[in-house]
Amino acid sequence: MTLAPTGEPTAKTEQIDGATRLYVIIGDPISAVRSPQFFNALFAEHGINAVLVALHVDADGLDAAWAGLKAMRNLAGVVVTMPHKVRAAALVDALGPAGQIAGAINAARREPDGRWLGDMFDGRGFVDGLRAQGHEIAGRKVHLLGLGGAGTAIAVALAEGGVSGLVLQDVDAARRDRLVDRIATGFPNLAVTPGTAPDPGVDAAINATPLGMKVNDPLPFDPATLPRSTLVVDIITKPEMTPLLERAAATGHRVHAGGHMHRGQALCVARFFGFC
Amino acid sequence: MTLAPTGEPTAKTEQIDGATRLYVIIGDPISAVRSPQFFNALFAEHGINAVLVALHVDADGLDAAWAGLKAMRNLAGVVVTMPHKVRAAALVDALGPAGQIAGAINAARREPDGRWLGDMFDGRGFVDGLRAQGHEIAGRKVHLLGLGGAGTAIAVALAEGGVSGLVLQDVDAARRDRLVDRIATGFPNLAVTPGTAPDPGVDAAINATPLGMKVNDPLPFDPATLPRSTLVVDIITKPEMTPLLERAAATGHRVHAGGHMHRGQALCVARFFGFC
Repeated sequence: MTLAPTGEPTAKTEQIDGATRLYVIIGDPISAVRSPQFFNALFAEHGINAVLVALHVDADGLDAAWAGLKAMRNLAGVVVTMPHKVRAAALVDALGPAGQIAGAINAARREPDGRWLGDMFDGRGFVDGLRAQGHEIAGRKVHLLGLGGAGTAIAVALAEGGVSGLVLQDVDAARRDRLVDRIATGFPNLAVTPGTAPDPGVDAAINATPLGMKVNDPLPFDPATLPRSTLVVDIITKPEMTPLLERAAATGHRVHAGGHMHRGQALCVARFFGFC
Repeated sequence: MTLAPTGEPTAKTEQIDGATRLYVIIGDPISAVRSPQFFNALFAEHGINAVLVALHVDADGLDAAWAGLKAMRNLAGVVVTMPHKVRAAALVDALGPAGQIAGAINAARREPDGRWLGDMFDGRGFVDGLRAQGHEIAGRKVHLLGLGGAGTAIAVALAEGGVSGLVLQDVDAARRDRLVDRIATGFPNLAVTPGTAPDPGVDAAINATPLGMKVNDPLPFDPATLPRSTLVVDIITKPEMTPLLERAAATGHRVHAGGHMHRGQALCVARFFGFC
């Protein structure tokens, strides 16, 4: 499977018919998501009669939309994006392991018995994306800033991926400390600690906050305080080079942009849906 | 606009993106519907970033599915097919004129103020389909058998289209008599009467019952009892040549198959959605 096949085979929208299986991505905002392009290229390449379309659903509409999706019997899977990842975890019938720990999901599928299984691939996709770029995290010490849905999933995947140390930071100290406790319980051999800024001893510093999406956002942290050997990572995809990554590149750090995570994540979800 | 463009332009499913407007057809069963092919060819031809997909929703799931569709803000229109046409009329915020009389809808669209407007184009599509084949109904006497959702809509459209006489037949005499009364009230100059079988004086005899969809169904009426000048019409599309039409063709009658209605109907709905 490739992310964006450049040649044939392609599928035409006129080939969509009454027997086409349906997948959706649900979020707000929705217009910039890339899942339709990714999955529809995948379906075309594999000759699968399925299509993925984007649904614009706001937080107030999620419960009704979800109940509606469950009533659509040819609806086979849902990709869940902001702001629905936490609430959607309460709407499925069962949670996979990463979804349970994260308390959030980014994908759900209809099982053969009709129940809905949700799981969270943001974290695994993130780690897969790092590895695909040659950044192995096993045995490394990592600082993670931002413990919302994506950040929580990344924390779990970093722990699963064998980091030797994990420092968690969030503007909400109570949320941070709860996650420290959960990770410590789930991974008793891992040194997981709360932090307030990346210290110079970490091998990688990751921004999982939204800081950098808006033009006048402050930097989530200043890479100039870190040694050049520290990998600076952002999960924001728009812009691809965030102010944090620009600054880090200017100070001679290696950088890793958000697109790699999204590609890794999409591949994980495609596997979860039973493709590739 | 053409029903099935044979050349370019076409749209590829990979062109579906987060900004694609969504249309659906909702029904049970759903796999044989032709609306996806029709509308997606139309969207491709007009360069419209929209897609229509089929949703398999059973009668028990309709209310939940409909509430879900309303929560999907990029969902612009719904084509309604069996068995949902009557119930859906109760789920929209407002009804067009034919929808009001029929008490059923086959399409609904989201208005600029967010309200949902439903209307019934089965009847108009049927009359358009007859006219497209050269069968003018104005001034003619017509027998109509089967007064469910489609039959009711056809009765109204025949009255609107200026038939000189309309005989209505249904296995449910109370339903039949109620519709006779409603048509008589709405069209005081039209001779509308109940009937139990097509009499030899009618210019056209129409089957709007499901009889003929299953292999061992009895004929809805026997065309051999009618003069050869009587047009014999079926609204069933699968099979295209129903046993009724086969029998009528064998006895020398002109026949008119269900596909013409569906094409007329799709064009009416496309206009209702704001295209062509």
